[in-house]
Amino acid sequence: MQLRKYGFSILKIQNIFISHVHGDHLFGIYGLLSTMSMLGRTAPVFIYAPTEFSAILSDFLRHFGGMFKYDISHIPLKGEGLNTIFETKSFEVLSFPLNHRIECYGFLFREKYPRRNVHKYLIEKESLTLKEIARLKDGEDVTRDDGSGEILKNNKYTYLPYKPRSFAYCSDTAPFGALKSYIKGVDLLYHEATFTSDMAEMAKATMHSTASDAAQVAKEACAGKLVIGHYSSRYKELTVLLKEARNIFPDTYLAEEGTEFDIPMKNKENDVYENN
Amino acid sequence: MQLRKYGFSILKIQNIFISHVHGDHLFGIYGLLSTMSMLGRTAPVFIYAPTEFSAILSDFLRHFGGMFKYDISHIPLKGEGLNTIFETKSFEVLSFPLNHRIECYGFLFREKYPRRNVHKYLIEKESLTLKEIARLKDGEDVTRDDGSGEILKNNKYTYLPYKPRSFAYCSDTAPFGALKSYIKGVDLLYHEATFTSDMAEMAKATMHSTASDAAQVAKEACAGKLVIGHYSSRYKELTVLLKEARNIFPDTYLAEEGTEFDIPMKNKENDVYENN
Repeated sequence: MQLRKYGFSILKIQNIFISHVHGDHLFGIYGLLSTMSMLGRTAPVFIYAPTEFSAILSDFLRHFGGMFKYDISHIPLKGEGLNTIFETKSFEVLSFPLNHRIECYGFLFREKYPRRNVHKYLIEKESLTLKEIARLKDGEDVTRDDGSGEILKNNKYTYLPYKPRSFAYCSDTAPFGALKSYIKGVDLLYHEATFTSDMAEMAKATMHSTASDAAQVAKEACAGKLVIGHYSSRYKELTVLLKEARNIFPDTYLAEEGTEFDIPMKNKENDVYENN
Repeated sequence: MQLRKYGFSILKIQNIFISHVHGDHLFGIYGLLSTMSMLGRTAPVFIYAPTEFSAILSDFLRHFGGMFKYDISHIPLKGEGLNTIFETKSFEVLSFPLNHRIECYGFLFREKYPRRNVHKYLIEKESLTLKEIARLKDGEDVTRDDGSGEILKNNKYTYLPYKPRSFAYCSDTAPFGALKSYIKGVDLLYHEATFTSDMAEMAKATMHSTASDAAQVAKEACAGKLVIGHYSSRYKELTVLLKEARNIFPDTYLAEEGTEFDIPMKNKENDVYENN
């Protein structure tokens, strides 16, 4: 219902990423799969979820499989550190472990590094050959074809057409040291903030984060922007969570139904080369 | 989400009535049960649903039972005709079979007949004793205590304080003859109207009703008011369904999210006695 309300095309969804099999993170999938079926879907759906989801899905399909004219596959999440679980030509999705009461994963959605562009004014000025341009685009330093022995330094001749953008989704988790390394430099970080700091004991007991914890992760990961969510229902007024996070990480916002967070494309023509 | 949006208290729900185990009639229950749990529920929940629901629930509890601090019981629906499946002092819920692709039931929610009241002016005028009044309230004709042999006719001395109100829920079903008898005289009838009449073949094949079918049921059952719903997503504009139904049963309305239909209490002081 929410996807439709905000104008998303349900049938375009091909891949679904489930952090863990707690009801508040999972139970929407039944209605979504059912609606896809009613809309006449035939294209397969891939669900990336922890291993435990396998038995849940097979029981579901045993009872309700008859309604589906499309395949539903489960791709189990696993492993330590960052793992690429899905990719296209232009972007990739990686999973990484979180620290919750049951097996739980975060996701990093990021654009791949684009091929470098060669500055036009240098192509003209130095009469670069097509072969030299191609090699420069691959990121190499290039020895000129004219036998002069001159070397074209890649970082002088090329630039990144845009900076690859990234979004990380971290819910649910208690704070842990390695997290910041998984999401280093992410443009937009969603991180759960179930409690305020005065509930730190409760946060620890339930393996959740406080707003301060979330902000600390954003700060240490050098995130561009932080969006917090997954608030305990005890908070009728969410500004207390927002204020607490902004004390540590000013560029924090509340995840509220329907809010959009844009990650603007940054042109990098004047930046130096960066390795992936 | 919808219950909360319209101000219902989720924790007050004790009994849930499921017509059949198709996804669009069932899958909301997982989130509802999960939310009840998160709100700290300890009171039991009773789910009235066809027999097939039993295995569905036990698989669900096998995977997710750990989250519940309250009991979830399944009461299987069965039988031909009207069956009382739940009752309190003042009202009762009855189930009756519908005619769909899988086992499916409709529900009739109705107030019980209240105890009769004795007209005050007659109590005074005839100096009725407490014993005579009590027996009159039970609906009997009463021979006077004074030895006169005079008989107090119940329908002269008493009246129904209010007419018991009723609501029937019928989804999903193809039309069938016995339905009108189950819901005879219902004040408010909800009946599915998946298609318009030009799609009668499709309605038949999928065992659904057209708007005309729904209106015909309301008419033959002498319903007070008809509300139609369960529209096929092919109808972007619902007035075509409404118009079709109103041609047969003028007092028809569209079930749209958030609409309330009141069943006014009718005082019956001047009506004659009616047997239940």
